[in-house]
Amino acid sequence: VIPNHTTHQINTVFRGTFVHSTQEEALVILEDALLGVDSTGKISFVEKGPELEKVSAKFGFNPSAVTQLSPQEFFMPGLVDTHIHAAQYSFAGTALDLPLLDWLQTYTFPVESRYSDLEFARQVYTHVVKRTLRNGTTTACYFATIHTDASLLLGEIANDFGQRALVGKVCMDRNGLHEHYKEETQDFISELIKRKYPLVKPVVTPRFSVSCTSELMLKLAEVARNNNLHIQSHISENMDEVRLVQELFPESESYTDVYRKHNLLTSKTIMAHGCYLSDEELQIFHQTGSSLAHCPNSNLSLCSGLLDVRKVLSHKVKLGLGTDVAGGYSPSMLDAVRRTRDTSKALKIQDPVHQTLTWEETFRLATLGGSQALSMDDQTGNFVVGKDFDALRVNVAAPNGDDRNILEVYVAGRKVVPL
Amino acid sequence: VIPNHTTHQINTVFRGTFVHSTQEEALVILEDALLGVDSTGKISFVEKGPELEKVSAKFGFNPSAVTQLSPQEFFMPGLVDTHIHAAQYSFAGTALDLPLLDWLQTYTFPVESRYSDLEFARQVYTHVVKRTLRNGTTTACYFATIHTDASLLLGEIANDFGQRALVGKVCMDRNGLHEHYKEETQDFISELIKRKYPLVKPVVTPRFSVSCTSELMLKLAEVARNNNLHIQSHISENMDEVRLVQELFPESESYTDVYRKHNLLTSKTIMAHGCYLSDEELQIFHQTGSSLAHCPNSNLSLCSGLLDVRKVLSHKVKLGLGTDVAGGYSPSMLDAVRRTRDTSKALKIQDPVHQTLTWEETFRLATLGGSQALSMDDQTGNFVVGKDFDALRVNVAAPNGDDRNILEVYVAGRKVVPL
Ligand SMILES: [Zn+2]
Ligand SMILES: [Zn+2]
Repeated sequence: VIPNHTTHQINTVFRGTFVHSTQEEALVILEDALLGVDSTGKISFVEKGPELEKVSAKFGFNPSAVTQLSPQEFFMPGLVDTHIHAAQYSFAGTALDLPLLDWLQTYTFPVESRYSDLEFARQVYTHVVKRTLRNGTTTACYFATIHTDASLLLGEIANDFGQRALVGKVCMDRNGLHEHYKEETQDFISELIKRKYPLVKPVVTPRFSVSCTSELMLKLAEVARNNNLHIQSHISENMDEVRLVQELFPESESYTDVYRKHNLLTSKTIMAHGCYLSDEELQIFHQTGSSLAHCPNSNLSLCSGLLDVRKVLSHKVKLGLGTDVAGGYSPSMLDAVRRTRDTSKALKIQDPVHQTLTWEETFRLATLGGSQALSMDDQTGNFVVGKDFDALRVNVAAPNGDDRNILEVYVAGRKVVPL
Repeated sequence: VIPNHTTHQINTVFRGTFVHSTQEEALVILEDALLGVDSTGKISFVEKGPELEKVSAKFGFNPSAVTQLSPQEFFMPGLVDTHIHAAQYSFAGTALDLPLLDWLQTYTFPVESRYSDLEFARQVYTHVVKRTLRNGTTTACYFATIHTDASLLLGEIANDFGQRALVGKVCMDRNGLHEHYKEETQDFISELIKRKYPLVKPVVTPRFSVSCTSELMLKLAEVARNNNLHIQSHISENMDEVRLVQELFPESESYTDVYRKHNLLTSKTIMAHGCYLSDEELQIFHQTGSSLAHCPNSNLSLCSGLLDVRKVLSHKVKLGLGTDVAGGYSPSMLDAVRRTRDTSKALKIQDPVHQTLTWEETFRLATLGGSQALSMDDQTGNFVVGKDFDALRVNVAAPNGDDRNILEVYVAGRKVVPL
């Protein structure tokens, strides 16, 4: 059988510097490389520039049609935001003096209730998808709200603009607020699957165990299993929350044990934060193949905690980075990269023995690490033949260190920025 | 005697929202205010918008010539960068994995030696002045290098582009490297004073006590006293440095005591960092009226320490913020504001009793606090009649939270951005 990636026509070939990560090496720099993208958006080949003639003959493209990068440019893999609340984008940066639980009551819940209004939802969701794409986020794992129609709309908008996305309709039922979550979730999932968006999929999304009954969590786990779906939620973000969960679920050994007992820890589960997970809990993550979304901006902004990423990695737990808008005030994954380093350095200042994350390791977490955390590393995360071409064309000459350095953004071979 | 600000013609009047700080209130929002700038660049009046007619009659300007801000715009005071190494701008963001003393040897000293080349100096200094103005830094307290001509050139460039600046030719003489510092410093200072730049002044700049002999420090203190000049240096940035200073100056009680014994702590002294100052040392700062430049990006990047700003303020020590380029990787004071909050929040995470700095307090540190730390609050720092109009016209509609939100920059009434 001829592998898929050789059976399609070559659409685009780039020549220049490519920077990416592999499991073995945090930073691999391919100078004067040739990368071909086929008509399905997949990477057909990664070869050496000087072998252009041989490669063009083999893959059947015209050598003069190659797009040459300037010496100031390079390609890197698209950034993967493993945790972002699309619905909270409208108040990013608001009142981050409150601790988590107060902040949820004061800002999050009232604003999220507005998403019964589809026009409001369309406006904010269009902004968030465009803005995150502009910032280089080629894959986003979204929390929407409890509203089925608005959540479907987020999926539609991500699909329209060409972003790879997991979209979660949020579920919560404590205090008798809402009774029909299981049915609505099933509706949301069936509908989103029916639409057959190539890059947008549903993710089962209990908000966190504080706002979910045991019954709801068990039902959601069942929905996820029956449809082979991703699961996302929050865990161990701050100490008050950890204590509250212990009170609500006295029969469980730990916060992690709550989710495990409710069958929510699978190899397609991603949990945000995890600042206060014990070694035993990290071991459960490792055993179940569940992963963590590290959201350092949010953890600092809400004074939640300083996650020791080094410890997480030493337990061989998959970990990606997240902006956690609007707990985090920045929707940029470049900010998440910088704050990851800051957090690691703050830990080093406290404990000189702590081994800080290198720049290269953090780069890997934001790309390949994120794709692994979302169990999508078979499709994206680095420049490997057969994966989709999710990439940022970066110009190092712009002195900003922000989205102005990102000239173009590709998702599955389609240029999505500039529009 | 009629006060100065009423004797000059009104050049510009703005109407709209003005946001600034006072000693009493960290954030004052003046809605629909009128602010007049006279022909010398000073603020002539701050009045209420609805009283336009009365004000225009009193100050003799045409009401139709008022510049109206849009509802999405406001003015804030210019940002004050109390500590930035202009000469290190060329390698901002390089190799921040090294601790301070290694980093100085590996990157700083070799690069700084290139400033004997005036063309190289002109290129980098032009970049740094333009870039920091673009980012809203209306006042900068610069470290240049040991080179007299290049340091004068930095003063010339700041003057040309209209930035308020203190410029320091760096002095160091340990290990017999250099013998004529006192004479050269006197030459630099005399020449810069002779040029009569209205907004650019020299600052006496021993690099730090690790690289200065007692003799040099005493001589520099004399130069400062004889010319009534500012003094700047570094103090207590990290633990290794603190220990080294203890070894080099065994007769001193503390790092602060070293500078005090050498007459370098005056009411016009600003010391960068101070992460590990004891209560006793902070008391010396308070008594001498010397101030601190808090550089949180640098302190995190180099894993130096987490300065407890709350403690510094409780000792009534003046404190401003600094980028410390290139120990800090960002030349933007907006970054310094954010990292100040992050550091305060990291301290809170470690110790829940810690009272985090509010957003408003941090805003004040970046503006009024900086001007106080540089003993320039009689000229700049907020919108008070008689002070120079140093201001940023901010557009909140741009969703970036960076220099793209800054529409215009004024220094002493002159529009310096856009050029
Ligand atoms: Zn979240
Ligand atoms: Zn410095």
